[in-house]
Amino acid sequence: MAVSRGAEHAAGRRRGRKDREVRVPSTAHYRRLVNPFDPLRVLDDDQVEDIHQAALKVLADHGIRVLLPEARSRLGAAGAAVDEDEQLVRIGPDLVSASLAAAPPEFDITPREPTRRISVGGRNVVMMPAGGPPHATDLDRGKRTGTREDFENFVRLTQHFDVIHTNNPIVEPQDVPLELRHLASTTAMLTLSDKAPFIYARGREKVADCFEMIRIVHGLTEDEFATQARCFTIINTNSPRQLDEPMCLGLIQFAESNQVSVITPFTLAGAMAPVTLAGALTLQHAESLAGITLAQVVRPGAPVVYGAFTSNVDMRSGAPAFGTPEAVKAALASGQLARLIGLPWRSSAVSTSVVADAQAGYETMMNMMGAALAGANIIIHAAGWIESGLSASFEKFILDVEMVQMFAEVFQQVGTSEAEIAVDAIGAVAPGGHFFGTDHTLERYDSAFYEPIVFTRQNFGQWTEAGSQTAAQRANPIWKRIVADFEPPHLEGSIRGELDDYVARRTAEGGAMPPS
Amino acid sequence: MAVSRGAEHAAGRRRGRKDREVRVPSTAHYRRLVNPFDPLRVLDDDQVEDIHQAALKVLADHGIRVLLPEARSRLGAAGAAVDEDEQLVRIGPDLVSASLAAAPPEFDITPREPTRRISVGGRNVVMMPAGGPPHATDLDRGKRTGTREDFENFVRLTQHFDVIHTNNPIVEPQDVPLELRHLASTTAMLTLSDKAPFIYARGREKVADCFEMIRIVHGLTEDEFATQARCFTIINTNSPRQLDEPMCLGLIQFAESNQVSVITPFTLAGAMAPVTLAGALTLQHAESLAGITLAQVVRPGAPVVYGAFTSNVDMRSGAPAFGTPEAVKAALASGQLARLIGLPWRSSAVSTSVVADAQAGYETMMNMMGAALAGANIIIHAAGWIESGLSASFEKFILDVEMVQMFAEVFQQVGTSEAEIAVDAIGAVAPGGHFFGTDHTLERYDSAFYEPIVFTRQNFGQWTEAGSQTAAQRANPIWKRIVADFEPPHLEGSIRGELDDYVARRTAEGGAMPPS
Repeated sequence: MAVSRGAEHAAGRRRGRKDREVRVPSTAHYRRLVNPFDPLRVLDDDQVEDIHQAALKVLADHGIRVLLPEARSRLGAAGAAVDEDEQLVRIGPDLVSASLAAAPPEFDITPREPTRRISVGGRNVVMMPAGGPPHATDLDRGKRTGTREDFENFVRLTQHFDVIHTNNPIVEPQDVPLELRHLASTTAMLTLSDKAPFIYARGREKVADCFEMIRIVHGLTEDEFATQARCFTIINTNSPRQLDEPMCLGLIQFAESNQVSVITPFTLAGAMAPVTLAGALTLQHAESLAGITLAQVVRPGAPVVYGAFTSNVDMRSGAPAFGTPEAVKAALASGQLARLIGLPWRSSAVSTSVVADAQAGYETMMNMMGAALAGANIIIHAAGWIESGLSASFEKFILDVEMVQMFAEVFQQVGTSEAEIAVDAIGAVAPGGHFFGTDHTLERYDSAFYEPIVFTRQNFGQWTEAGSQTAAQRANPIWKRIVADFEPPHLEGSIRGELDDYVARRTAEGGAMPPS
Repeated sequence: MAVSRGAEHAAGRRRGRKDREVRVPSTAHYRRLVNPFDPLRVLDDDQVEDIHQAALKVLADHGIRVLLPEARSRLGAAGAAVDEDEQLVRIGPDLVSASLAAAPPEFDITPREPTRRISVGGRNVVMMPAGGPPHATDLDRGKRTGTREDFENFVRLTQHFDVIHTNNPIVEPQDVPLELRHLASTTAMLTLSDKAPFIYARGREKVADCFEMIRIVHGLTEDEFATQARCFTIINTNSPRQLDEPMCLGLIQFAESNQVSVITPFTLAGAMAPVTLAGALTLQHAESLAGITLAQVVRPGAPVVYGAFTSNVDMRSGAPAFGTPEAVKAALASGQLARLIGLPWRSSAVSTSVVADAQAGYETMMNMMGAALAGANIIIHAAGWIESGLSASFEKFILDVEMVQMFAEVFQQVGTSEAEIAVDAIGAVAPGGHFFGTDHTLERYDSAFYEPIVFTRQNFGQWTEAGSQTAAQRANPIWKRIVADFEPPHLEGSIRGELDDYVARRTAEGGAMPPS
């Protein structure tokens, strides 16, 4: 296509910038995403109600095994039928209903920097990076065990991009001893970032440490800490129908302190859940309702999120598969179930691919769109997830941020003022002409379209000349530059001192071990 | 994740199959796709009406330049105001309305194999491969000028996959002389495939040849030929506001013969269209309405498709950009405009990426989902498009087929019978157990989930052992195997003889040149 002299000139000026430059456009409007689309539906209303009723029946008739005695006794005191021999708790529909009525439909999570506050529920969309991978990978060093350095670098990337709204445990820092790991990762999230931190529910003592560290950076008393949600955790059930001790403890402790539990059954259809989507959704729903009930029994009004992570196994190997069409349908159905019970809900953007190749792109985008168009309030694993969650990829983090930013753009309204519809501007250009140099174009050109950070618009010749790099290869210098140039957000020296003292003291005391 | 003994056994049996085997699952249900989702809306009703009215104003006040005298006189005779000096035709809203009332909201295209008939309109979705690239590319030979061999191989791939519903000019066979090219490509589509052929509108004589060849393989008289739509063409306007001679001729000739015109303005916001999305959509709408009007003036009731291809240029270079967030919004808005005027419409699944890497995956999937969820009736470039349409990629064809098949699966209903909801099956598995070996699973396992053709579910070890191949690398042997094993669909020997005789005679007569 011919390019006008004006555009060529502008392009030439811009090409003067360094090729490898990391552009940081103004993306403040990415800090709060509102989904303008009515959620897609994959079930009719009767089907949604049937699954809900079936889940209630599972809880009432078959029950859920609850491994923590305290959790069983709390549920029993609230009216559930407890079989102590089997550690089985049967929860009737009335207790579930009362719990759903108590849970807030929408709430905020407020980190130390108030402009990073996020709203969970309604049409708000919170984008979270990958959580949980034991390994890190990048194009320079390949796949390896995750380290503290990797963890911290991922926090830096998380902090850098406005469109990523909270921290998450992007990689497990395995070079830090288990009893000190929570101190190291929480220090990183609280000092390298001012976005909301994620806290693992790995035992009462670890969680108490993390709450205390958050209290310190917020400059609050203990009572003040519990007045607002300031952090969140993920509660994974041991599907099918089981809640283990650390997860029960986490639910109780987060509810007691008014902090957020995202209750996510790990219901892989064909493995830990029925092979039918409806069956897997029924189990997901039952387990999430059980977790929600425990939280509300502990503290009515505790902020909880309905977690949906239903995917399926591979038919040939029985291995987990992510980014599948079945997972898209499960996400759409989960949104309908969450809206039926009136709670905010989470979904995911995931992939099975081992590398950041075309498969990773198709799968992640398909699941991202499924989640977004299902009306998810929180989309986890939205940046950096690879290899079915076994690795966190630095290059894929950058590629995924591109994806998420493109979504942020799709969420922006289309203006249709008279000037935007532009009948006069259309009439002013001769048939067969072009709009490059017109006033209508020049007035709007600089901000008219999304400008990618890593996706190229080079033609074949330019691309070849620049080294024939794949998108993943182009992402490599971008994340390294961000890490190299990173400056942590401001934190009062006295607060930093108090935090460091606390960590030093707890380290000297031996830290805290998770429940065995 | 632990895999049960049963699943391991099954996986072992399956691994016995050849690793490189090209699986051809039963995909007959992919031949007719019905979109179950209510279309997404990016505009409110008033905005849609405003753009429609603005487009009518553009046509009435500013008009469109029509380069073919016959087209001007036909439009003039129907009531449009013609300025012969300027070759400008101003079309009033009444003529547009009458044309829209005459155009059918839904119709079929019937190729020689009746089971390959497609329905255009309503909730039907027709997937078409890439159209137009001058170059072909694959991992063995790289990018090169398209040849007849490339064209024929793409027809073989098109024929192979049920989820690809028609032919398209996937690559330009540039080693065939221009005057014979239509004979070669139509022969390939009619003999290597039994799906509907695409015919380029490159002059009256070429189109007449192609119609005749289709008539021969259908075994029809000339009158019988025009009773049904049997092929289609794309009419691209020369945006802004211009219809050139071959496009006018094509519109007239296809309408006269009751064949299908997909009228697609090439409205790149910021280049051939206003920089604002609303402006680009207004221009797209005006130009498509002009083409629709010409077709209906020629023959009321002629099958036409509203074409939407609005994307944008890159802000830095002025080059076309595809797979952008702006294009997603344009697709959603185009669906609303098409539904306002009551016509079937086409969209696209495209990408700017030069190679079949992660960028290509994200971009293509994002645009595919935009098109599908906008309710597009025809999605063009759904397989093989790369490099902003300058090349057709054999590997990306396979990767895109995976994407399209995944969509076909998302379109299938979620069953919620009592057995599918599976309360009893859930109750029968102990808490913390698994569903691998249960009857409920075994009865459904083989067909429960989509089984990918090129996306891997290997873990890191298996994948490394298999050669650490990217998705594109894995796609390479798949397309070559399909081409090598290809058997053309049956065609009566006498009909094949008649077709070959026709081509030989027309070749001896020198073929047909496009209008200069």
